[in-house]
Amino acid sequence: MSTLISPPPVVWADMVRLAVQEDLGRRGDITSRSIFSNKDQGRAAFMARKGGVVCGLDVAREVCRICDAALIFTPEKQDGDVVKAGDVLARIEGPAIGILEAERTALNYLSHLSGVASMTHRFIEIVAGTKAKICCTRKTTPNLRTLEKYAVVCGGGSNHRFGLDDAVLIKDNHIAMAGSVGAAITRAREAVGHMIKIEVEVDTLVQLEEVLTHKVDAVLLDNWPLTDFVQAINVIDGRAVVETSGGISLDTVRAVAESGVDLISVGALTHSALILDIGLDIF
Amino acid sequence: MSTLISPPPVVWADMVRLAVQEDLGRRGDITSRSIFSNKDQGRAAFMARKGGVVCGLDVAREVCRICDAALIFTPEKQDGDVVKAGDVLARIEGPAIGILEAERTALNYLSHLSGVASMTHRFIEIVAGTKAKICCTRKTTPNLRTLEKYAVVCGGGSNHRFGLDDAVLIKDNHIAMAGSVGAAITRAREAVGHMIKIEVEVDTLVQLEEVLTHKVDAVLLDNWPLTDFVQAINVIDGRAVVETSGGISLDTVRAVAESGVDLISVGALTHSALILDIGLDIF
Amino acid sequence: MSTLISPPPVVWADMVRLAVQEDLGRRGDITSRSIFSNKDQGRAAFMARKGGVVCGLDVAREVCRICDAALIFTPEKQDGDVVKAGDVLARIEGPAIGILEAERTALNYLSHLSGVASMTHRFIEIVAGTKAKICCTRKTTPNLRTLEKYAVVCGGGSNHRFGLDDAVLIKDNHIAMAGSVGAAITRAREAVGHMIKIEVEVDTLVQLEEVLTHKVDAVLLDNWPLTDFVQAINVIDGRAVVETSGGISLDTVRAVAESGVDLISVGALTHSALILDIGLDIF
Amino acid sequence: MSTLISPPPVVWADMVRLAVQEDLGRRGDITSRSIFSNKDQGRAAFMARKGGVVCGLDVAREVCRICDAALIFTPEKQDGDVVKAGDVLARIEGPAIGILEAERTALNYLSHLSGVASMTHRFIEIVAGTKAKICCTRKTTPNLRTLEKYAVVCGGGSNHRFGLDDAVLIKDNHIAMAGSVGAAITRAREAVGHMIKIEVEVDTLVQLEEVLTHKVDAVLLDNWPLTDFVQAINVIDGRAVVETSGGISLDTVRAVAESGVDLISVGALTHSALILDIGLDIF
Amino acid sequence: MSTLISPPPVVWADMVRLAVQEDLGRRGDITSRSIFSNKDQGRAAFMARKGGVVCGLDVAREVCRICDAALIFTPEKQDGDVVKAGDVLARIEGPAIGILEAERTALNYLSHLSGVASMTHRFIEIVAGTKAKICCTRKTTPNLRTLEKYAVVCGGGSNHRFGLDDAVLIKDNHIAMAGSVGAAITRAREAVGHMIKIEVEVDTLVQLEEVLTHKVDAVLLDNWPLTDFVQAINVIDGRAVVETSGGISLDTVRAVAESGVDLISVGALTHSALILDIGLDIF
Amino acid sequence: MSTLISPPPVVWADMVRLAVQEDLGRRGDITSRSIFSNKDQGRAAFMARKGGVVCGLDVAREVCRICDAALIFTPEKQDGDVVKAGDVLARIEGPAIGILEAERTALNYLSHLSGVASMTHRFIEIVAGTKAKICCTRKTTPNLRTLEKYAVVCGGGSNHRFGLDDAVLIKDNHIAMAGSVGAAITRAREAVGHMIKIEVEVDTLVQLEEVLTHKVDAVLLDNWPLTDFVQAINVIDGRAVVETSGGISLDTVRAVAESGVDLISVGALTHSALILDIGLDIF
Repeated sequence: MSTLISPPPVVWADMVRLAVQEDLGRRGDITSRSIFSNKDQGRAAFMARKGGVVCGLDVAREVCRICDAALIFTPEKQDGDVVKAGDVLARIEGPAIGILEAERTALNYLSHLSGVASMTHRFIEIVAGTKAKICCTRKTTPNLRTLEKYAVVCGGGSNHRFGLDDAVLIKDNHIAMAGSVGAAITRAREAVGHMIKIEVEVDTLVQLEEVLTHKVDAVLLDNWPLTDFVQAINVIDGRAVVETSGGISLDTVRAVAESGVDLISVGALTHSALILDIGLDIF
Repeated sequence: MSTLISPPPVVWADMVRLAVQEDLGRRGDITSRSIFSNKDQGRAAFMARKGGVVCGLDVAREVCRICDAALIFTPEKQDGDVVKAGDVLARIEGPAIGILEAERTALNYLSHLSGVASMTHRFIEIVAGTKAKICCTRKTTPNLRTLEKYAVVCGGGSNHRFGLDDAVLIKDNHIAMAGSVGAAITRAREAVGHMIKIEVEVDTLVQLEEVLTHKVDAVLLDNWPLTDFVQAINVIDGRAVVETSGGISLDTVRAVAESGVDLISVGALTHSALILDIGLDIF
Repeated sequence: MSTLISPPPVVWADMVRLAVQEDLGRRGDITSRSIFSNKDQGRAAFMARKGGVVCGLDVAREVCRICDAALIFTPEKQDGDVVKAGDVLARIEGPAIGILEAERTALNYLSHLSGVASMTHRFIEIVAGTKAKICCTRKTTPNLRTLEKYAVVCGGGSNHRFGLDDAVLIKDNHIAMAGSVGAAITRAREAVGHMIKIEVEVDTLVQLEEVLTHKVDAVLLDNWPLTDFVQAINVIDGRAVVETSGGISLDTVRAVAESGVDLISVGALTHSALILDIGLDIF
Repeated sequence: MSTLISPPPVVWADMVRLAVQEDLGRRGDITSRSIFSNKDQGRAAFMARKGGVVCGLDVAREVCRICDAALIFTPEKQDGDVVKAGDVLARIEGPAIGILEAERTALNYLSHLSGVASMTHRFIEIVAGTKAKICCTRKTTPNLRTLEKYAVVCGGGSNHRFGLDDAVLIKDNHIAMAGSVGAAITRAREAVGHMIKIEVEVDTLVQLEEVLTHKVDAVLLDNWPLTDFVQAINVIDGRAVVETSGGISLDTVRAVAESGVDLISVGALTHSALILDIGLDIF
Repeated sequence: MSTLISPPPVVWADMVRLAVQEDLGRRGDITSRSIFSNKDQGRAAFMARKGGVVCGLDVAREVCRICDAALIFTPEKQDGDVVKAGDVLARIEGPAIGILEAERTALNYLSHLSGVASMTHRFIEIVAGTKAKICCTRKTTPNLRTLEKYAVVCGGGSNHRFGLDDAVLIKDNHIAMAGSVGAAITRAREAVGHMIKIEVEVDTLVQLEEVLTHKVDAVLLDNWPLTDFVQAINVIDGRAVVETSGGISLDTVRAVAESGVDLISVGALTHSALILDIGLDIF
Repeated sequence: MSTLISPPPVVWADMVRLAVQEDLGRRGDITSRSIFSNKDQGRAAFMARKGGVVCGLDVAREVCRICDAALIFTPEKQDGDVVKAGDVLARIEGPAIGILEAERTALNYLSHLSGVASMTHRFIEIVAGTKAKICCTRKTTPNLRTLEKYAVVCGGGSNHRFGLDDAVLIKDNHIAMAGSVGAAITRAREAVGHMIKIEVEVDTLVQLEEVLTHKVDAVLLDNWPLTDFVQAINVIDGRAVVETSGGISLDTVRAVAESGVDLISVGALTHSALILDIGLDIF
């Protein structure tokens, strides 16, 4: 897959419209509307102030379209591109009031999503050469899940569940309720149909053996000590996808990746990424 | 004002409902629904895993209500409280499936908003003893502006504009279009009515003198060198509220605050705060 | 500011869409759809039947666009223009069914908003030569606030608050709760930040002196006898913007304006304006 | 029918919620929230400042419920009651902030709808003793049609079409397109089914005879000179419901009613009624 | 009326957008998006796999537009056309991902609505030569009423009420509450205004005589034995439109139609029609 | 899993509200509102007129709640129960107008969903004793997918994909675009992450062998002749879940099931089920 494709606009454009309304309030940009006429035209460029990975160009274009359909948005980069400070990401041209009303919302999306992509990219670079994939979680910012998960892909990462409804993840309290991990897996498999995968969170090596006998698709080892974790990988020996999680940082991720694990899921990618600093230069 | 009051639910509850729908997708938590019955009851506690300032308890309560009206939500802390690792923030009790379907969305709000409040609080502690207030910007996460600005208040900070429509902020391109800063101010004052404040971004000491002759409510000095900045404060001498901004961090904020500035606005409070780590312990 | 600019469509177009749906119901214009084919074309003109000030042309255009994107809407006047009976305001051309389905909703907006603009204009003409501005209130028609406040501007008037959230207005019960007007102002100033203005409603000359010591942005003198009111203006002497209100009519407004007051707010502009009679002539 | 029943809330409550959001903006009543705590309680009464007919009590109750579910709303009057200045319409009791946030939106609905009911009532009193009914039109305020038409009923009036989809009204351009009034009626009758009534606007006595041969349900005589109009009523002689319209005012309506007409439709009931002055007294 | 016209899109397009979102979920067609690039183009044809009457082409076009505005949709048939297996109904051309994301939702609408039209058409063919019209009911699929009723028209049928608000239908429990059928009719006529028709459900010949004295627009004879039913038609003798209903099938409808009844309403047209099998052939 | 649990209301209740609004239109049940007062109370029972499997009781309850929160809904059966003609499914008690306004929408949901459940149940009974599961498709009624898929489960069936986003299904055109089935699978696996299953539609035995080498989760054999199909099952020999589809009816399903196939998917379950006849008896 060469070029990245944004999720379909019908999935996220309603939310972008709400975000524009949030910034414009009841009467739009009262400063610009006092001073500019609706005949005044302008040009502007979205410019990276720091280096990173860009994400959100189609969203920024949609913000501009919502603010004024006469704005012409011309991307200079593509989502997933690595950019450096000073690079122009996109240009806009058209009614000056439209540019100024689109500015902040477009930047808020672009810098947030590019921040997620850039942070993911840093993890990806560190684990290069191992088979470990870097994966996001459901610890996303409310109402931004689709776009943040796309940003993770732009940064080179992979996606885990998009919601509670598209895969099974069995945890302690499910097992306790069902009576045994086997009973829990059986009930879930029966209920959800043949097109849904099942992952089980495992706490001990003993429990791991039991889980593996039930042919699950994946096991999650959360917050395991590294030595136990390496042993677990050996025990699993390809019988299930192995995911690990639990406070893994840029400092610790390389060691985890070298264990042979398949997936390292990192909540911070979506809940604690710093923005990528992007500005709008207006001419 | 002793106790903090959340913004009115009618302002943010529609968005919270969308966030719950985002996580539940088309059929809810397929794992829990396979294994639990709708008669199973549970109890759980939102617990701080790290210390910080809590924000978002009413939002978490609303998430629970949306997921199952039978859930009983009992706060143990209030928004704005400083908490330490291990503190229980709130308890919920009721249908087990409801608890598990509310869990992630409630945590995503609580940990994000508490993260903003906690970061604000760190700035506030550092500037203690000066007259400087710490203020947020419009660099907020899309569709979270009201709640993030409330989180800033919970952390001890102040709010700037909530949108483009509730105050005037005149910048370079407005001045260029109007011909002079005086013309820009006059036009804005004429257009927006008597209940709207006017702030002007000023780049040089020369421009500052001119702006002050027009009796603006506030001036914004963005990215000024500290020495020039101190000189500007003296020039202004109480004739306008003085705001500064531009990449001010926990390391640099004390020096800025000691200049006698009124407001230090920090975009990072809302665009780059790390979450406060909060979990849900289920019994 | 030469030309008036409508508030941004993203702020009001959703509501216009609902208004079209309100008139079309579940199946549109059953009369026209029984008789016309979707190939039939028509031409029509929005014509003033009485003289006044026009407002709402962009809204009428949007109504047409929603009903049939093939309709071509050509304005002949601009918002804010003074028109006389017989003047054509705009022309539409295109599918006949679209014209007939847009007709009533477009007229309802145009005639209502032009009614507000025209009534404002009559007040403005009467106070000409004084420094008094005519100002609207929050006594607007539900879900029409942004457009009605724009209509007031089209008629030459000014805007007060757009909602409870964009300025402080302290009244009796706030003062009673806080203990004193000074305490109320202090609490409000502390809570709302530096970009929000504060107005205080004042009932007596004694209270006025106290309020002025607290450097508020404006004072509201509601329903004052004219002689006391004139005395109050002298006392204030430019230390705050002075607003008055209370059943001021076309008959009484001149005397009030000559007192030297800054603002006269008139709820009737938005809650009790007669429509401007406008019709659609179909060819 | 003794007691009037509001239209079902599911039909209008979404719009009321939007109206509350319009007034609260992004953060609610910043004045009251600065000064009151969320423990402060209050009591208030909606009081008529002028005499008239009340309408909108259920809407006001819903506004209160939306603002704070803890508010207790107790009506003292019913929709359709004739009230005099000083009468209490309803009382509310509960959280002070909720009362103050509900105040303006509740009053805007109550005073607008009561204004429509009161104006209708004045027409009804004037035509008393004739068989003429006073009827509203589709010239309603956008997004208020259901409630305004209910207000007309509260004032003693009758309802015409609620939209373009619930009855046929054939006008000049329909007849021209169909080739003859008979063809137009035939096409409409064929298309719309047996549960839809057909009314035809008639311009001349000659045309009237032709229309009556086609057994329509009603004829509309718009802007006829009174003498011709009386002659037309005689010609019709009960063969169709007779409706008249066209700038009929309180001054002229009695003469029209005495002609023996069935229905007098008055656009001004809904597009140009002055509000009924109602206030909220807070204790 | 030669050509059928779809109901106005503003009435149904919001619902179509929701249906597209229902199928695309949080991230669209993950299969096609993994394999196709957004530069890949495709062509496809909607083809009837069985014979019937087509309905829903404008809806299918709207589905395509929502999925990708660059898709070109070219109808080869019109709504209401009788088609045979193998006929192409419409062609689409443009981005391959857009075609694949529109496919299922477009087909679900087209095949469902064409199923309703086709079933109606079969009834129409059977009653050919009688004066009986075939009519639908309010037993429609939730949120599809407007489109299903249009499909009935495409199949040659007629429409009954679109909702509880556009005509009066008096049944047993209304009569019992009012005290007599006459009282019920009087109350309804008084309340609903002159543009609303009144139909009364009649159970016995005795009741029929009473109802006819009140000049109702239509009577409904539900589940009458055929002999009584024929006698009733004679009694009515044109004094009201006669509608019958009650489990009438393709097998029994001819006998009913030959009774001279005006309308035969068949709930199955909208609640139990099999789809018309339509596929999308992709090239 | 003993008792069936409806999908979470937050997922479907917005749509139910729209369906109620669709039936109530702009003013609710004008018949009942003319004749009943809002003090009149009633009782009613939802009764099966034919035997089948019930589904939709929680939806019917929600319809009642939306129409009047004072209605008390008491289920007598549970979703998934087999009922016979004459069985009471649920009782409602409360305001008469509320009952009559809820009636049709509640019945439309109940009878449609119970129709789907009942049809599924007939298939299930026929394949009893084989290992074949009966499965639905994405050929659902627009905006009813979640509820129809739940109805399939109530009838004893299983669910396939809920949308284009929760599993991969590779078809001919994907394979053609990718160059080979292996390339298509590889690209999909790479793109969608580890929690998504992959199914491939296979047309020939040769292609089947190739697909199986790529370890897919399931294969779909659409419209295969029965003899080839049986051979394919032998070839697959448990290496993938085997699904078949293509016009399988109650007449043919037993033979297919006896082949040893895992899943038989039947579009007709959701696109062409007759309703279960259910009525509301009002006392």
